[in-house]
Amino acid sequence: MPIHKFAVTDAVFERSPGQDVDIFAGNLLDQRDGGPVTIGFGRYGPDQILEETMAVHDTMVILEGKITVSDGRKTVTAGPGEIIAMQKGDRVTIRSHENGAVTAYVTYPHWQQPEA
Amino acid sequence: MPIHKFAVTDAVFERSPGQDVDIFAGNLLDQRDGGPVTIGFGRYGPDQILEETMAVHDTMVILEGKITVSDGRKTVTAGPGEIIAMQKGDRVTIRSHENGAVTAYVTYPHWQQPEA
Repeated sequence: MPIHKFAVTDAVFERSPGQDVDIFAGNLLDQRDGGPVTIGFGRYGPDQILEETMAVHDTMVILEGKITVSDGRKTVTAGPGEIIAMQKGDRVTIRSHENGAVTAYVTYPHWQQPEA
Repeated sequence: MPIHKFAVTDAVFERSPGQDVDIFAGNLLDQRDGGPVTIGFGRYGPDQILEETMAVHDTMVILEGKITVSDGRKTVTAGPGEIIAMQKGDRVTIRSHENGAVTAYVTYPHWQQPEA
């Protein structure tokens, strides 16, 4: 596979299935490309809250705004240039703040299923 | 494993083994933690050049400065907030520019061997 460069303007943002909050993901490298990880950008509206059980290992690099994640035992808040790492099986609450947020993410394995 | 937050100030930067250029890596989550990916920050001095064959899949998010990567067929340059993805087996030339660079990286699998 060749090298790739991705910018946030390359991403086509979609609301994740089954969610109605203003949190969007845009994959740029995923199961369709044959590698082991999914890479993309995330966009969060202001003051959004998402509770989920992590289906994959997810590393987020915060590019704009702030994200707070709690797993019930520990709460972390990260801003631009900082990383939040969540592990498969973690039950987390992910929250954006008043200015929303933009993130880059890398998941292992892929979080989307191959298309039928 | 609990959730983690990492900042560049958490990283202990080390020159990669066998290299004498001013390119440093600081792992913050790796083979010692039991997960599938290594997470860390990279720091590049000005105008450094590194040629290597990728031993792992490496996703870099550029936080400061610019990085140019060439695989002989394609050359990409990325700046703050942009991503460069390199695949295991790619033969790449990685170059920093006049102001150096800071990156966040996620590799799959781990790029370091477990300590003996």
